[in-house]
Amino acid sequence: MSDESDYLSDLATRFGAIRAFTESLCQPLSTEDYVVQSMPEASPVKWHLAHTTWFFETFLLEPYSADYTPLHPQYRILFNSYYEAVGAKHPRSERGMLTRPSIDEVYAYRRYVNAAIIKLLHARADFTEITDRIELGLHHEQQHQELLLTDLQHAFSKNPLRPIYKTASQTTPTSAPSLQFQQHEGGLKSIGFDGNDFAFDNEKPRHRVFVEPYQLANRLVTQGEYLEFIRDGGYQKPELWLSDGYIFIHNHELQTPLYWYARDGEYYRYSLYGGIALDPHAPVCHISYYEADAYARWVGARLPTEAEWELAYASQPVIGQFAQQGDLIPRHTDFGFGSAWTWTSSPYIAYPGFRAATGALGEYNGKFMSDQWVLRGGSCFTSCYSLRATYRNFFPATARWQVSGIRLACD
Amino acid sequence: MSDESDYLSDLATRFGAIRAFTESLCQPLSTEDYVVQSMPEASPVKWHLAHTTWFFETFLLEPYSADYTPLHPQYRILFNSYYEAVGAKHPRSERGMLTRPSIDEVYAYRRYVNAAIIKLLHARADFTEITDRIELGLHHEQQHQELLLTDLQHAFSKNPLRPIYKTASQTTPTSAPSLQFQQHEGGLKSIGFDGNDFAFDNEKPRHRVFVEPYQLANRLVTQGEYLEFIRDGGYQKPELWLSDGYIFIHNHELQTPLYWYARDGEYYRYSLYGGIALDPHAPVCHISYYEADAYARWVGARLPTEAEWELAYASQPVIGQFAQQGDLIPRHTDFGFGSAWTWTSSPYIAYPGFRAATGALGEYNGKFMSDQWVLRGGSCFTSCYSLRATYRNFFPATARWQVSGIRLACD
Amino acid sequence: MSDESDYLSDLATRFGAIRAFTESLCQPLSTEDYVVQSMPEASPVKWHLAHTTWFFETFLLEPYSADYTPLHPQYRILFNSYYEAVGAKHPRSERGMLTRPSIDEVYAYRRYVNAAIIKLLHARADFTEITDRIELGLHHEQQHQELLLTDLQHAFSKNPLRPIYKTASQTTPTSAPSLQFQQHEGGLKSIGFDGNDFAFDNEKPRHRVFVEPYQLANRLVTQGEYLEFIRDGGYQKPELWLSDGYIFIHNHELQTPLYWYARDGEYYRYSLYGGIALDPHAPVCHISYYEADAYARWVGARLPTEAEWELAYASQPVIGQFAQQGDLIPRHTDFGFGSAWTWTSSPYIAYPGFRAATGALGEYNGKFMSDQWVLRGGSCFTSCYSLRATYRNFFPATARWQVSGIRLACD
Amino acid sequence: MSDESDYLSDLATRFGAIRAFTESLCQPLSTEDYVVQSMPEASPVKWHLAHTTWFFETFLLEPYSADYTPLHPQYRILFNSYYEAVGAKHPRSERGMLTRPSIDEVYAYRRYVNAAIIKLLHARADFTEITDRIELGLHHEQQHQELLLTDLQHAFSKNPLRPIYKTASQTTPTSAPSLQFQQHEGGLKSIGFDGNDFAFDNEKPRHRVFVEPYQLANRLVTQGEYLEFIRDGGYQKPELWLSDGYIFIHNHELQTPLYWYARDGEYYRYSLYGGIALDPHAPVCHISYYEADAYARWVGARLPTEAEWELAYASQPVIGQFAQQGDLIPRHTDFGFGSAWTWTSSPYIAYPGFRAATGALGEYNGKFMSDQWVLRGGSCFTSCYSLRATYRNFFPATARWQVSGIRLACD
Repeated sequence: MSDESDYLSDLATRFGAIRAFTESLCQPLSTEDYVVQSMPEASPVKWHLAHTTWFFETFLLEPYSADYTPLHPQYRILFNSYYEAVGAKHPRSERGMLTRPSIDEVYAYRRYVNAAIIKLLHARADFTEITDRIELGLHHEQQHQELLLTDLQHAFSKNPLRPIYKTASQTTPTSAPSLQFQQHEGGLKSIGFDGNDFAFDNEKPRHRVFVEPYQLANRLVTQGEYLEFIRDGGYQKPELWLSDGYIFIHNHELQTPLYWYARDGEYYRYSLYGGIALDPHAPVCHISYYEADAYARWVGARLPTEAEWELAYASQPVIGQFAQQGDLIPRHTDFGFGSAWTWTSSPYIAYPGFRAATGALGEYNGKFMSDQWVLRGGSCFTSCYSLRATYRNFFPATARWQVSGIRLACD
Repeated sequence: MSDESDYLSDLATRFGAIRAFTESLCQPLSTEDYVVQSMPEASPVKWHLAHTTWFFETFLLEPYSADYTPLHPQYRILFNSYYEAVGAKHPRSERGMLTRPSIDEVYAYRRYVNAAIIKLLHARADFTEITDRIELGLHHEQQHQELLLTDLQHAFSKNPLRPIYKTASQTTPTSAPSLQFQQHEGGLKSIGFDGNDFAFDNEKPRHRVFVEPYQLANRLVTQGEYLEFIRDGGYQKPELWLSDGYIFIHNHELQTPLYWYARDGEYYRYSLYGGIALDPHAPVCHISYYEADAYARWVGARLPTEAEWELAYASQPVIGQFAQQGDLIPRHTDFGFGSAWTWTSSPYIAYPGFRAATGALGEYNGKFMSDQWVLRGGSCFTSCYSLRATYRNFFPATARWQVSGIRLACD
Repeated sequence: MSDESDYLSDLATRFGAIRAFTESLCQPLSTEDYVVQSMPEASPVKWHLAHTTWFFETFLLEPYSADYTPLHPQYRILFNSYYEAVGAKHPRSERGMLTRPSIDEVYAYRRYVNAAIIKLLHARADFTEITDRIELGLHHEQQHQELLLTDLQHAFSKNPLRPIYKTASQTTPTSAPSLQFQQHEGGLKSIGFDGNDFAFDNEKPRHRVFVEPYQLANRLVTQGEYLEFIRDGGYQKPELWLSDGYIFIHNHELQTPLYWYARDGEYYRYSLYGGIALDPHAPVCHISYYEADAYARWVGARLPTEAEWELAYASQPVIGQFAQQGDLIPRHTDFGFGSAWTWTSSPYIAYPGFRAATGALGEYNGKFMSDQWVLRGGSCFTSCYSLRATYRNFFPATARWQVSGIRLACD
Repeated sequence: MSDESDYLSDLATRFGAIRAFTESLCQPLSTEDYVVQSMPEASPVKWHLAHTTWFFETFLLEPYSADYTPLHPQYRILFNSYYEAVGAKHPRSERGMLTRPSIDEVYAYRRYVNAAIIKLLHARADFTEITDRIELGLHHEQQHQELLLTDLQHAFSKNPLRPIYKTASQTTPTSAPSLQFQQHEGGLKSIGFDGNDFAFDNEKPRHRVFVEPYQLANRLVTQGEYLEFIRDGGYQKPELWLSDGYIFIHNHELQTPLYWYARDGEYYRYSLYGGIALDPHAPVCHISYYEADAYARWVGARLPTEAEWELAYASQPVIGQFAQQGDLIPRHTDFGFGSAWTWTSSPYIAYPGFRAATGALGEYNGKFMSDQWVLRGGSCFTSCYSLRATYRNFFPATARWQVSGIRLACD
């Protein structure tokens, strides 16, 4: 058997596995849980299931599969997220209004498209553009696996019953090592992706950057450390905050990370395991860029740039506490890439020489390159198969519902 | 058997029937359909099912049933609508976030409370306050039957698939008689309720009002007539509108009743039967007070006062196209009270001598007596058992998702 | 000299006097004080000066004065308040943007129009429509004299320097008599205007109403009494409030009337005399309808209807503490109509048989007949010449910047 | 005389000249023109005059002048812009409410502080911290000279009379050279300030950056070129825009730069000279970052980074069309730094190693380093004395009321 044949076989296997993993994440859910949208930035579980399917339908079956008949003509509009070149789209803030199609119909849609994709893969496997787009679709689906979980946690958090998605299997307390800064050399370096495997367009082109020598913490900031910041009045000290950040926390009366709540003088946090006690040794997460930045200033350090993070991890194996391990709260502060994303001090902009793809797929990453910040690493909600040291996650400074934490740097 | 025993037997029967009718309205729904809240003024179906149950639990079982144990302690907060005296309540605009309790749990809650009410009814039937509150709870439930349908239609209307709740059984076209005004005498009259049967506090006390002689139309305004108003540019003529009304329709870019949409130059309307053609002989509905008022001015008439309406219908039987008939679009313009509510020109305020009940139940009607307008009659979504000629429905001038129409008056 | 000639002479005299009185109110102002608009509902002083002039220009000079040339063609748009039939208008919320025309130009505009009106009056005095419209324009101007003061106080209140418009000439403390309720007979009565003198269209037609016997307080509620309501926790007791009112005070975190502020544990209030101490014997004012209604409920009384108020005052002379006396805070609780407006429990709607005038002037009152409440009496900012017992002032339930107070009633 | 004495003499001279220049900008204004605030981001002229004075009072007289008595104790709050460490501040959006202090009082405040500063300068001239802060205060004042003009133009633009600030002295049409790209070498370069003269903290420290070879346009984009973009439907093509930008222009229905308006099929623009015709050879300005970015994409180029701009201009003399020349619309596209600011593709963040000053002055620049973009160059509203090639101006992507234009770059 040829290498190509091996690759195709592997791709089909991965297609099945990744598509199935998405569905396995929904196994604990009631039918009602699929429907709700808790804010415009988040989407219902059902929508994630359908949109990832729409992606394969729109970017593969529609252009390349001559005999493909869409299952339902209006799905093209209903499940388009933001692709202007594809045409009309259902308003983002009204995704939670769609009680129909039903869950069963959405699962049927997934099966229908899955079968058509496998058929297409066998029929036209010689065409690289098809396999490339399937790879893209699979990475897209893995991104939505993470969003499915973050959005679900956000929706559940609006329910005072504090729903339990599943029960934690592990209860061993974690232990964070003492905080140390590790020295990294500076110089004219290269960052960004240039291999043959899959990477998103925003990780390219690989290019040179000049970096001064710097130090990076050996682990993520813990909940215990962040609690000291709170108890020291960190949220009330304007000198620690960016101006927009101070306005943000005061307008929304924020005093803790998202999902924290007080009861009888103690803090707890809502998680997919329900309400649980703080773990002083586990990473703080669900904080905005502003909070990460203020914490770093309070402690006399700073956030790393994305280049600093990437240069430190470029030669490391892609390990960490990721979604495949199935433990849904960040526990480990110093295991590989970590268990929560690292906010960097780098605005999310194009690398020098960046060119978005033409057509609708060019809208994937490039058009969001304003007023967002890069996060690096990965989280316990992230699929390990979709990560690389060059991977650039990005969110606005106010985003708190992602599993976003802090890794300190200094000069 | 005594009269009292007859009454109690009848009350228990009605309790079962009315509670069952609510559930029968949900029979066509998918599980997902129960969850969605399309605007703060509307509630999810599931919430209606639970809140009407909460009403019996809070106002009967809690004070009068010594051995009653609540099924779930947090339901007291989750399903409190607006009773400040009962304590905390889940925010109105976040009722759609409650994927839990599940539909099955809500139905179990209904069964649990139903059994306890029947038990209470048998145990303490000598206590008038209990039977009075059960009567109140049943009328409350019937009001929510109507809201369940109006809110469901509103939520479905947000779905471009235009879901079909059920299929119309009747297709016979209606025929509206020619419009005639019927003369009514004026004088010092009495309106309001003073019988022994159930009535809401806001229908009392019966009191004297002076009314000039007036004329009232023999039927509701039709869709065909309203279409003429639209085609004459009614929505673009400020002289026809109240100032707030003209601002309202322009800020929201309204050109037609709610649920109307144009396709290929023709108007259609979304209904619980899906999208259907206009029926020129059926009543126009889903309009705001402002639109009703502007239409009346355009045609050279006016809206009736609530006294005028009541005096005309006080001696009429309570017939019309109501919910029990099961036909979910208004068809008949001149059958009894009608098939759509009549906007009156009367602001919703207290009758002279009105006293709200003490305690939480005093919040039922009285605290809403500002900046709303009285509607009279009933609609094809209204339970016939909850209607009287003295019944006062009320909504803000901007409300359009109720089955609200126009009956003209003149001097 | 004929009666008609006497009337014309008197009209010309009044025209001069009323126009001059408006300007005299501006005498204490700096140039900067004329410009500011503190909220969309209020207007800059300069705008009041120009708009009242525009009224004469638009409704008299334009239709009746053949040789009149507008001073500036764009003033027609700039100073149109809300007359749709007149054409375009400068956005209400942007009246404070108009630094040009200058104050001097606005005064020149006034002189220019004044001269033209006097000329018109002499030239075409035989034409009743002209003198009627001049009368209307003068009453319009007097309404704006009051608004000029209320809007000025509101704008000044936004300045932490607490500007002093003028110094109080009187410092004698007031003394409120003990609260007594005076009995009034009920029956079939008539209210509304039907004389030959000027009255606004909304005071007509005179019509019959049935009123039960009622009692009306001998004076307005005092600041001292209202302070007891505050100290009893009135703002924290939902059972005292209309639902919309409780939401309103909580959304805006209201705990006192407008303009009250605390310093060293004592309450003060901002007035056109600057910050001054409470006067326990003077009327409470600058409260919303909701606060008036809640106070009445707290004290076990109610607000009067507008019919009750009018019937009690119909035969009284039009005396009170009015603008011509020049004392700019309400002091007297029991002098004639009072020194602060009385919120009534009557929504502002049309009297039976009301017909708005045709054309633009029909927009004066009629189109505002929704979701506002009638106030009766007058205030220390009101011109005594514009008052009658039938006069209907009206504002939304949330309005607090008018000199609005409470007179209690009970059955 | 010593060098130091020369420096002090020069500083006193510059102090007088710069303070006077601010006032000279107000010479054409009416008293009313000083008062108005047209949006929260802009400030009244009077506020600029007072705030720049407050800066000297707060950061020099208060800490260093033992015998200084504030002219008015509340000015400390009224004219504090955003310095949290200084204490309370009047709300930014309510600066336009301050009719008092009057213009005359504000000018008196300026004279009072001016005298005290000169006295302090003579008394304690040996203390470098004092002269450094005077330098900072003068650069601060020059920044506000520009803002005074941009804010004034914005306020005037809200007046349909299109006020004329002054009459243009020049009417010679400009002529833009043909567009050419000039090649610049890449490599490891240094940017940022490291001299002895004044520079803001955000221009430091000088640091190394790696830049690929690039090309920079010989001139700014013209109005004629931008008009082609409009006529080609540029505002309707989503593929040209950042996602946030496309939402922005559609939510605000933008189709042209700010201040452009159409009359009889031709575009005009509002300027401080009143409404004037487009000049196809003059620079386009008053555009957002989004529009600059979309135009560049449309033309197949890109915006320069701030490093690219600085490296190209580092060795150039600081010449251009600046405020001292007194011509208030940008005319020259290729004269030195230009006549309109250049939007760069660089988010405004800290240079590596940046440290904000301690205390209140540390709030000057550092706390704004999020979600803004760097502009380079200068404009016809900018004081030439406050410019350097290293100067970093910054505004949010949506800002359009600054004199912001486009200079293209490519690889």
